[in-house]
Amino acid sequence: MPTWNSRFKKSLDEKALKFSSSIDIDGKLYNEDIVGSIAHVKMLMKQKIISYAEGKKIISALESIRKEILSGKLKYDWRNEDIHSFIEEQITKKIGAIGKKLHTARSRNDQVALDERLYLKKEITTLIKTLIGLQKTLLKISSKHKSTIVPGYTHLQRAQPILFAHHLLAYISMLGRDVERLNDCLKRADKSPLGAAALSGTTLPIDRNYTAKLLGMKGIVENSLDAVSSRDIVIEFISTCAIIMVNLSRLAEELVLWSSQEFAFAQFDDSFATGSSLMPQKKNPDIAELVRGKTGRVYGTLIGILTVMKSLPLAYNRDMQEDKFHLTEAVNTTKDCLEIMAGLLKHTSFRKDRFEKELDGDLSLSTELVDYLVRKEIPFREAHNNVGKVVALAVSKKKKLNEILLADYKKISPKFEKNLYNFLTAKSSINNRLSDGSTSPKEVDKQLKFWMRKLS
Amino acid sequence: MPTWNSRFKKSLDEKALKFSSSIDIDGKLYNEDIVGSIAHVKMLMKQKIISYAEGKKIISALESIRKEILSGKLKYDWRNEDIHSFIEEQITKKIGAIGKKLHTARSRNDQVALDERLYLKKEITTLIKTLIGLQKTLLKISSKHKSTIVPGYTHLQRAQPILFAHHLLAYISMLGRDVERLNDCLKRADKSPLGAAALSGTTLPIDRNYTAKLLGMKGIVENSLDAVSSRDIVIEFISTCAIIMVNLSRLAEELVLWSSQEFAFAQFDDSFATGSSLMPQKKNPDIAELVRGKTGRVYGTLIGILTVMKSLPLAYNRDMQEDKFHLTEAVNTTKDCLEIMAGLLKHTSFRKDRFEKELDGDLSLSTELVDYLVRKEIPFREAHNNVGKVVALAVSKKKKLNEILLADYKKISPKFEKNLYNFLTAKSSINNRLSDGSTSPKEVDKQLKFWMRKLS
Amino acid sequence: MPTWNSRFKKSLDEKALKFSSSIDIDGKLYNEDIVGSIAHVKMLMKQKIISYAEGKKIISALESIRKEILSGKLKYDWRNEDIHSFIEEQITKKIGAIGKKLHTARSRNDQVALDERLYLKKEITTLIKTLIGLQKTLLKISSKHKSTIVPGYTHLQRAQPILFAHHLLAYISMLGRDVERLNDCLKRADKSPLGAAALSGTTLPIDRNYTAKLLGMKGIVENSLDAVSSRDIVIEFISTCAIIMVNLSRLAEELVLWSSQEFAFAQFDDSFATGSSLMPQKKNPDIAELVRGKTGRVYGTLIGILTVMKSLPLAYNRDMQEDKFHLTEAVNTTKDCLEIMAGLLKHTSFRKDRFEKELDGDLSLSTELVDYLVRKEIPFREAHNNVGKVVALAVSKKKKLNEILLADYKKISPKFEKNLYNFLTAKSSINNRLSDGSTSPKEVDKQLKFWMRKLS
Amino acid sequence: MPTWNSRFKKSLDEKALKFSSSIDIDGKLYNEDIVGSIAHVKMLMKQKIISYAEGKKIISALESIRKEILSGKLKYDWRNEDIHSFIEEQITKKIGAIGKKLHTARSRNDQVALDERLYLKKEITTLIKTLIGLQKTLLKISSKHKSTIVPGYTHLQRAQPILFAHHLLAYISMLGRDVERLNDCLKRADKSPLGAAALSGTTLPIDRNYTAKLLGMKGIVENSLDAVSSRDIVIEFISTCAIIMVNLSRLAEELVLWSSQEFAFAQFDDSFATGSSLMPQKKNPDIAELVRGKTGRVYGTLIGILTVMKSLPLAYNRDMQEDKFHLTEAVNTTKDCLEIMAGLLKHTSFRKDRFEKELDGDLSLSTELVDYLVRKEIPFREAHNNVGKVVALAVSKKKKLNEILLADYKKISPKFEKNLYNFLTAKSSINNRLSDGSTSPKEVDKQLKFWMRKLS
Repeated sequence: MPTWNSRFKKSLDEKALKFSSSIDIDGKLYNEDIVGSIAHVKMLMKQKIISYAEGKKIISALESIRKEILSGKLKYDWRNEDIHSFIEEQITKKIGAIGKKLHTARSRNDQVALDERLYLKKEITTLIKTLIGLQKTLLKISSKHKSTIVPGYTHLQRAQPILFAHHLLAYISMLGRDVERLNDCLKRADKSPLGAAALSGTTLPIDRNYTAKLLGMKGIVENSLDAVSSRDIVIEFISTCAIIMVNLSRLAEELVLWSSQEFAFAQFDDSFATGSSLMPQKKNPDIAELVRGKTGRVYGTLIGILTVMKSLPLAYNRDMQEDKFHLTEAVNTTKDCLEIMAGLLKHTSFRKDRFEKELDGDLSLSTELVDYLVRKEIPFREAHNNVGKVVALAVSKKKKLNEILLADYKKISPKFEKNLYNFLTAKSSINNRLSDGSTSPKEVDKQLKFWMRKLS
Repeated sequence: MPTWNSRFKKSLDEKALKFSSSIDIDGKLYNEDIVGSIAHVKMLMKQKIISYAEGKKIISALESIRKEILSGKLKYDWRNEDIHSFIEEQITKKIGAIGKKLHTARSRNDQVALDERLYLKKEITTLIKTLIGLQKTLLKISSKHKSTIVPGYTHLQRAQPILFAHHLLAYISMLGRDVERLNDCLKRADKSPLGAAALSGTTLPIDRNYTAKLLGMKGIVENSLDAVSSRDIVIEFISTCAIIMVNLSRLAEELVLWSSQEFAFAQFDDSFATGSSLMPQKKNPDIAELVRGKTGRVYGTLIGILTVMKSLPLAYNRDMQEDKFHLTEAVNTTKDCLEIMAGLLKHTSFRKDRFEKELDGDLSLSTELVDYLVRKEIPFREAHNNVGKVVALAVSKKKKLNEILLADYKKISPKFEKNLYNFLTAKSSINNRLSDGSTSPKEVDKQLKFWMRKLS
Repeated sequence: MPTWNSRFKKSLDEKALKFSSSIDIDGKLYNEDIVGSIAHVKMLMKQKIISYAEGKKIISALESIRKEILSGKLKYDWRNEDIHSFIEEQITKKIGAIGKKLHTARSRNDQVALDERLYLKKEITTLIKTLIGLQKTLLKISSKHKSTIVPGYTHLQRAQPILFAHHLLAYISMLGRDVERLNDCLKRADKSPLGAAALSGTTLPIDRNYTAKLLGMKGIVENSLDAVSSRDIVIEFISTCAIIMVNLSRLAEELVLWSSQEFAFAQFDDSFATGSSLMPQKKNPDIAELVRGKTGRVYGTLIGILTVMKSLPLAYNRDMQEDKFHLTEAVNTTKDCLEIMAGLLKHTSFRKDRFEKELDGDLSLSTELVDYLVRKEIPFREAHNNVGKVVALAVSKKKKLNEILLADYKKISPKFEKNLYNFLTAKSSINNRLSDGSTSPKEVDKQLKFWMRKLS
Repeated sequence: MPTWNSRFKKSLDEKALKFSSSIDIDGKLYNEDIVGSIAHVKMLMKQKIISYAEGKKIISALESIRKEILSGKLKYDWRNEDIHSFIEEQITKKIGAIGKKLHTARSRNDQVALDERLYLKKEITTLIKTLIGLQKTLLKISSKHKSTIVPGYTHLQRAQPILFAHHLLAYISMLGRDVERLNDCLKRADKSPLGAAALSGTTLPIDRNYTAKLLGMKGIVENSLDAVSSRDIVIEFISTCAIIMVNLSRLAEELVLWSSQEFAFAQFDDSFATGSSLMPQKKNPDIAELVRGKTGRVYGTLIGILTVMKSLPLAYNRDMQEDKFHLTEAVNTTKDCLEIMAGLLKHTSFRKDRFEKELDGDLSLSTELVDYLVRKEIPFREAHNNVGKVVALAVSKKKKLNEILLADYKKISPKFEKNLYNFLTAKSSINNRLSDGSTSPKEVDKQLKFWMRKLS
């Protein structure tokens, strides 16, 4: 029988109960709910709103309920409506009338807001660890590939040779900003809404800051309406998950490309690839594809929560119950994808010798020739034009840049001299980079060291 | 051990298996999978690709597997990867080597596409029934409220009086188009992709049309790449669900408004409302709010599947496994919301006497005066202007339109005469409507009859 | 001065006017607005609500306004609020008081709903033509590549050889369903809401069906509230655009892949590719990338309109003004992308000789060997396993399938005989397909003929 | 003629150029582009990559181009492709060959990334100011309504009386977190990508930190691939805009409700409301509705940019050009909505006397009675039950709580005594709140003071 039932003459219709029951989702937050209740009771004791003896009994009941849920002894299903009502009922079963004091000076509105923030706090911390785990995996591979040369692409066209470590360091940097964003969100999430009661506060002499302190939170959400009505923290968090998925989907796409017969750069260990039910030769990059595909799930939760919250008048509305569906889905999908991506990368080998030779003299060294001319005082745009002509010649003759004769070079610009050929290896191109954050070995090394320090 | 395993030296890593397993979702399609397999086997028999005796054994094994799953005797979990592999494994367990012929001339790619289409077919049919159920409920209430007068709103401002039946008929019409859209989608969904095999068809002499016929489908998806690569049907279906949710969310919003103390028009039966854990007086429109909130879930699945499919090269990619998450979520949420909305409406009473008196002489009858003047040959825009002045007078004097003296009316326009007051009741306003589809009792009756015929 | 102004003592604040003005978007629908007004006036004349002489003057004014707008003589900006008010103002300027009769028995609510449906009707027709144009371009290329062999991919791994024509025919089929969807939507859109007036119909003796007939529409939107409140047609249309973009984004992705140095299959004409401001060698698939990127715009409009309509109570709300932003953006983007894709394809050459030789003996012929064994009565799953072992051998020896000795084959299965090598060319693999809709030359030819008939 | 043209034999097809031209959007960033170029040139001068004299000439050309664009003397259209090429062309027109040195050690890839970050920096700063402006407006109204009592709602049902100031302070708090989020985003945006060149850095001896310093930026985006490939900052920013719109849409919804005849609480000044083209009495909350509707636009841009970036391989891809469409749309819509909301609120009056009397003795004071019993040592849940019975009695007798006789109260619980009536006024309910952040006058005053200090 629901806790709010005394003015009602009938209980909720079974279909309506099933439809509105949230325990399949908020049931996973039972620990947060109990932790919050214990802090609440301790505060009620301190403030003498309930007696010390009463408080102790309630707390002990809460703790044994937690154990029973954890051990699987105590179970709930949709008939129990929500985890808050369920736990309150259990207490009363255990300790009788005293249990009815637990909800003093509290409403489900502030209670659920608290549970959600405690959950967020825990999950943000976990996500940050998982992100750092993936960064470390990438860093390890980067260290192994400090001299592996690959084509750097723009528009999926070979643009300029780069070190593979440099490529992976780009992802490490992106994920680093994801960590920052999560920390910023945590800062805002780590405040207690408890004590806002239904929406307007309470006439009982509670101490909101004390409860917050007991919960290890950095303060309270001041305005009581704000405390129970807002879900901006949840949206902010999910949008951060969406950004993480953007980054993962890009890496996943590259893994799919690299493992194709055409790119032939990455090879997955058998334990991280699958075959085909029909075609015996297949070795498919399923894990990467699924990470890419699961991006849709997280985008979906973001639109989901934004849709839920749009145009809701203050304060609490039942629509907001849906927030936990979107939140838990975003948390689980993002976490799983981060973890499996680290696992996949650990079980992927990259062919060090795949590209370097192919890139010597390749058209993707054209910029080297432009810079060559610029250093000889040819205005950049003119240099670009001259090298464009070299490229056209190479394409028409089906030759590499280092196969074109000096005489032909000189016809295009007299500034070309024999030493131009020195600039036409992939390695020289990389080694000659000078700018901060560039793909030169020195700069890549600097980045590697920076992240090793940062992630250790 | 996966079915595709012979070229692999290791089995899939446990984490990778868990991450990629789809049986939690496609397991719900076991019946579709078995139905599809039986038809496939019958065709293989007819084409003599397998012998009659073999075929009979496989079919009988499939049928007993179906019974065992249904009865709960046979269970599966994520370790079983997907329902297709699981069922094939079970057959081989039951009948040995012969079972290994089931997958002849088939791939998981066309199999999964078929299962999904069979599922869609079933669910579209159910959804249409559920939509019609809701239409009927609305129609019943409309019939009861053929003379209940309520304010028609635009911009949530009272605009013109209307019959409540007319208001509900608008929703019946909208839902009618939802039914049309589902039927249109069904037309496209009801085609068999089976026989496309992995992507290119097969060298075995199968008969695709025969299989389709056995399955009661209206033909085949011709091009084999299209058959395994496309999910436009799924997107079309989910977008139709999203439109249904738009319509439901609007009705839900109105129920929330109507049950507020301010509108005081609708009252929910205790069995379809909930109270507050803190505030004993509360009777909340939770069901309507949840329907409104669950709109977010369906919008989320739409963005989800659109995200999954964006930019995927042909043919099958593993990302597409995610389609069933979005599809089943959309199906279940939409179906539940349609059903519960019918239930809620059946348990809602609307106060016939709430508005009529209040609307007599109300400012929302201003258009009556405009039409009055227009009928007296005043150009519309001038009539509008004159009545605007009447309204300004009424507002400043805090009077109703029927409380303003004829003398004052005449000052604004000499065309006003005593009979103007006849037009200032809510009922006359409604009765005087002449146009097709208007809120006049005659037109409302016509609509009621139309839908009664149509829905019976 | 707005048309609704007489009860107001102040005009709209300039900032508020600028914010709420919609003429930058609905101004593009001036022709629809005038066409609708002319039909409305003709009906008012027929019904004697206005006199014949009055009607003629109004119509002639409307026609000259149309000419003036078209020629650029008459201009409007945000100060004119919306196109409806602007045109009404212009008429009154031209013909004085009579012009004030135009809006008789009409509201902006039904007027704007009509304009939008007329616009939709026009644009759906155009889009269908554009879709067919793209199908024809694809068909032309297919005809040229009836014997061009390319790898068919699943998971971006080479799966089985297919004809390039077959690949393109998959897209033709997908686009064919897009055409169907647009036609289905048109069926629902092609109904007139005019005469619903503000929301409840009118007391004036109008003839809604006559107006609809004049406009060439297939009937009226019956229920007057539905007529002014619903935008499901717009959502349905935009979701169809989103599906079109899914299909285009997939083709675009493939063009990007095919034009990479690794795939080296497609080459864009200089007139449909761009270079780099820095790297002289670059030839970028920008057009394909932009089509892919613009998918985001159309998805955005879909979420946009869904967000706008969620939870709006009946009838008209000003939020709905935003629908035209999303609608026109979806129309223009989709149309532009379809057109440019046809243009791009016309300026792309595909290398007929790129893959065939490479595919002879390739691992992607493994299914041929499975079918070979199946035809020799080996159960499919066992055959799959045997060929899996062949593949493992080939991989470890770095050999093609046709480079493995018969002796080695026989060690794996005694059923292998010398004629197996006949099945190991790309061409034989394709030629041996038997199933409907497969990639065999015969089936591809059938499809080509089907579409040639259909599209001519 | 495009800058990248020398290896191309044809210019870009006109349709392709029109389709790919971005100057309609990036043209608005001309100032950022010039500012960035000037800093780049100064750095090239300092590093002696170009001479002092050359640099001066280029800078002076850039400055005069800026003036000419600002004054409207210099115009561009889609034929100019993008603002970067256009400006470079103009320089060369002005100063000849020297102008061709501007692009030395730079690519459009890093240039466009810089322009966007400079734009973001400017717009974030503006948005923060606008947010604070709206907070101030809300604060001013709060100060005026420190003792205006309104019903606090949950589920749109009257829950407990609150001060209107308290209600508005909830919004001030929410907007406060929006400001925080923008500041966090700014921190990440305020770094220079310039010097990353195409993707890998440059062989010329540039000084990236010096350029950043000249631009007033807080450092550089270290990894050169990251610098040109990432748009997470843009997504983060747009998602913050989406959250702002959530908050605005909620306030807008409330304004629509409050201005309805049923709520009758808010009244808009004529200068911020509109009428109807048909119904002379209408005074519509259009501005609030449009703010609510424009939420769809910003949600759309969020999904738009997420869709664009999903699965893009590194580094730059042309799809990313679309980011500026979404970014500028989000910036403009959010800024306009914030501004107009402040304007609207300034022109809205709220009726101080609307609710207080109605709330005295109202059912929404039930919690007062629960707390009353709790203070008399009745366990909370029992107290809740007892008051539930009181409510049921009141509802059945159609009485207010203060109209029920003490005798009847006592029948339900003997703990009820005469002083219970003291707790049944709206004012006492509010005054008796004790908790931090509650709606008590003292707490509301504390919040008002906090924000006055903070916002001054």
